[in-house]
Amino acid sequence: MERARKQLHLNLFLLSTGHHEASWRHPGSAPERAVDVHYYVKLARTAERGLFDSLFLSDAYGLPPTIKYKVLHGLEPFTLLSALAMATERIGLIGTASTTFNEPYHIARKFASLDLISGGRAGWNIVTSTGNTTALNFREEGLPEHSERYRRAEEFLQVATGLWDGWERDALVIDKDSGVYADPDKIRPILHKGAYYTVRGPLNLPPMPQRYPLLVQAGASETGKAFAALAAEAVFTAQHSLEAGKAFYADLKARLPRHGRAPEEVSILPGFCPIIGDTAAEARDKEQALHELTQTEYGLYRLSNLLGLDLSTYPLDGPLPYAELPETAQINSQKGRQQMFLDMARSEGLSIRQLMMRTASSRGHFSMAGTPGQIADAMAQWLEEGAADGFNLMPPYLPEGLDDFVDKVVPELQARGIYRTAYSGRTLREHYGRTAPPRIAAPAAAQAPLRA
Amino acid sequence: MERARKQLHLNLFLLSTGHHEASWRHPGSAPERAVDVHYYVKLARTAERGLFDSLFLSDAYGLPPTIKYKVLHGLEPFTLLSALAMATERIGLIGTASTTFNEPYHIARKFASLDLISGGRAGWNIVTSTGNTTALNFREEGLPEHSERYRRAEEFLQVATGLWDGWERDALVIDKDSGVYADPDKIRPILHKGAYYTVRGPLNLPPMPQRYPLLVQAGASETGKAFAALAAEAVFTAQHSLEAGKAFYADLKARLPRHGRAPEEVSILPGFCPIIGDTAAEARDKEQALHELTQTEYGLYRLSNLLGLDLSTYPLDGPLPYAELPETAQINSQKGRQQMFLDMARSEGLSIRQLMMRTASSRGHFSMAGTPGQIADAMAQWLEEGAADGFNLMPPYLPEGLDDFVDKVVPELQARGIYRTAYSGRTLREHYGRTAPPRIAAPAAAQAPLRA
Repeated sequence: MERARKQLHLNLFLLSTGHHEASWRHPGSAPERAVDVHYYVKLARTAERGLFDSLFLSDAYGLPPTIKYKVLHGLEPFTLLSALAMATERIGLIGTASTTFNEPYHIARKFASLDLISGGRAGWNIVTSTGNTTALNFREEGLPEHSERYRRAEEFLQVATGLWDGWERDALVIDKDSGVYADPDKIRPILHKGAYYTVRGPLNLPPMPQRYPLLVQAGASETGKAFAALAAEAVFTAQHSLEAGKAFYADLKARLPRHGRAPEEVSILPGFCPIIGDTAAEARDKEQALHELTQTEYGLYRLSNLLGLDLSTYPLDGPLPYAELPETAQINSQKGRQQMFLDMARSEGLSIRQLMMRTASSRGHFSMAGTPGQIADAMAQWLEEGAADGFNLMPPYLPEGLDDFVDKVVPELQARGIYRTAYSGRTLREHYGRTAPPRIAAPAAAQAPLRA
Repeated sequence: MERARKQLHLNLFLLSTGHHEASWRHPGSAPERAVDVHYYVKLARTAERGLFDSLFLSDAYGLPPTIKYKVLHGLEPFTLLSALAMATERIGLIGTASTTFNEPYHIARKFASLDLISGGRAGWNIVTSTGNTTALNFREEGLPEHSERYRRAEEFLQVATGLWDGWERDALVIDKDSGVYADPDKIRPILHKGAYYTVRGPLNLPPMPQRYPLLVQAGASETGKAFAALAAEAVFTAQHSLEAGKAFYADLKARLPRHGRAPEEVSILPGFCPIIGDTAAEARDKEQALHELTQTEYGLYRLSNLLGLDLSTYPLDGPLPYAELPETAQINSQKGRQQMFLDMARSEGLSIRQLMMRTASSRGHFSMAGTPGQIADAMAQWLEEGAADGFNLMPPYLPEGLDDFVDKVVPELQARGIYRTAYSGRTLREHYGRTAPPRIAAPAAAQAPLRA
């Protein structure tokens, strides 16, 4: 009997008109529908037809200064995901929530509510936020420093999981005859008093179907990877090549035993931005047409912002001014992605314009133009050579980029025996092949006596 | 031609198994479905069949210590309302959000998203929170003092409305040819730096269909009424008698001109808890049966908590120990409701048991048992004698109490010519007969220069 092939997991990174920065100018895109719930319903149903494990909404709490040239991000994640829960049956629903600019009680409760509403399909992409576009909507002093944000994230996660664990499964008695609704001894406060949060508990919702939402993380810095190894069940990552993907994969998986976790307890999903053509030439033409829709002014702004240096005064077709660039540690945001871009530009000798173009479609993620078969082959290679457990699909333009993937690439993946032909699980965690969330250490203060 | 009769507005106060504290023990109730979205979908659709202006979810951020005897409150409002938006077409969706334990940027954005998702049906019940059950999930020092909470609420509302007003209607250009998506000169930051909040803005969502969600308020204290006169478009209130209702109505309407507002700019909706029988005797039997489901231990606890004195050591059939009760000002929570209970007990000479029973079904709201015709007559009287512009319907038990109201009382109201026979408006604000939200003063700091 042939050994079953490893199965890949697919998440749809659902973003407005798509992931290429010029996607909204694509002839098939509908940028006027970026805040229309029915637009997202249709996309979510397409992904569900494609048997995706999940869809995912990124988030930031501010309006980017690039609004002149860049489409709106979309609706607020909790409200949109809850709406999508009502319009879908099986697909997982992953929302981003920041541990830097939220209260853990609110976030724990909203995910519990979303998991109850969706029948066990909620996932939490845990972020610490980057940039003052978000920070200045909450505090005068701007973004806390990188390592403080991660200390906060750890405490936040302890509080949230403590709240979710505070209810025993059989706490609700609901005995109409005796008039006893719940057994209060089975619902415990957490009495948390930490460096950043004071939360008494208990949560005012019973255990959600999944106990915790699926925990997802995307930090690429050392601190981010350490946090993922501690807590994440799925990791989104930007890897521009198979080699880089393998190195990241090996690195992250090796960190797991230190936390008492097995390598298969975390699914690593590199971002993937495919441009699909019926022939290789057609795919290349589509890619070229997209690139021609990008704007130099905007592209330079984006790259300058990421690298921490105004590039508009340097020759567009010359090399990056490596000597002028600030140390990555000084930028305090998206450290990992930035280093990856610099490595890519150096190793391939890219000009400023080339790096700008290369990163316009995929922001440094794995990107390729090809036929459905070529794309499926590449995905199979990443899966089999240990660079991925699946992919975070980032269609360059929507809805066409997703329609093509579901209609043309999914059958190729199924034909190769590496992708499901029907959902087998009910919950998001089951889609990713697991039954229980990771164990997160309880808050230290949970032993404190009950307050009067 | 006969002059058209004044029309009443109906809001459904949607609460778990109903508003009587023993509702979950009612033979027809489904307390095991208190966190089941499909249960709420069915109720929302019934209210929409009854042409209600809106439904409303109250909220608190903590688990009441009464969970042993009292059914869970329900799901989290933003996630539940967004789900209900997908399952209904016309009914307004009012959610509670506290100005004491939230960030204005998050709340402004969630209501904008909900209004976009629902096509202009969002409403915000603005509360300042009461009680340490909520407060201790956010801060060690407990609930801020009453007047500070209202100062915070005013600043919070200024920030929220400032964010909503920050976008001009035509800010989105969306010109695929030129590559210009938005006109940044038409999207202004608010640069707010106040006593409690620092919020730069702008919001990362375009104007919602209603510009603001319908602004709703329910505070009964002097400060609460002043805030309602300043900002509310609908007011929920607890009035146990026609006389009390008239006094409150006259008081609140008289405050409006001071804020440059006309009396018809605020709809006053007293809570109403009807027990409906096909005969008066059947209605009384239903009421009696419900009262017999109440538990003395729980009822005493609730009343003790509200009045700030442990009543369990006093004779149940004796009078309230008025001399022992703390001054209402010392309790710093639900001031107005508490005073109303004391007035009611004094004027009617109620025993502790009688007050406990009287407040078990309706928490001090207008309550009656009667036939559909008697109930419609009472509602018409409140409307015509200047005690109400409509009602905040609080069915004592669900789903039966709502089914009966929609099937039996609504036709009686329609027959009297005081209630719509079809929706005429599209948005929640249109249901309440208005076209524009109130003008809220812009934050003082909005003139500050842009930060570098």
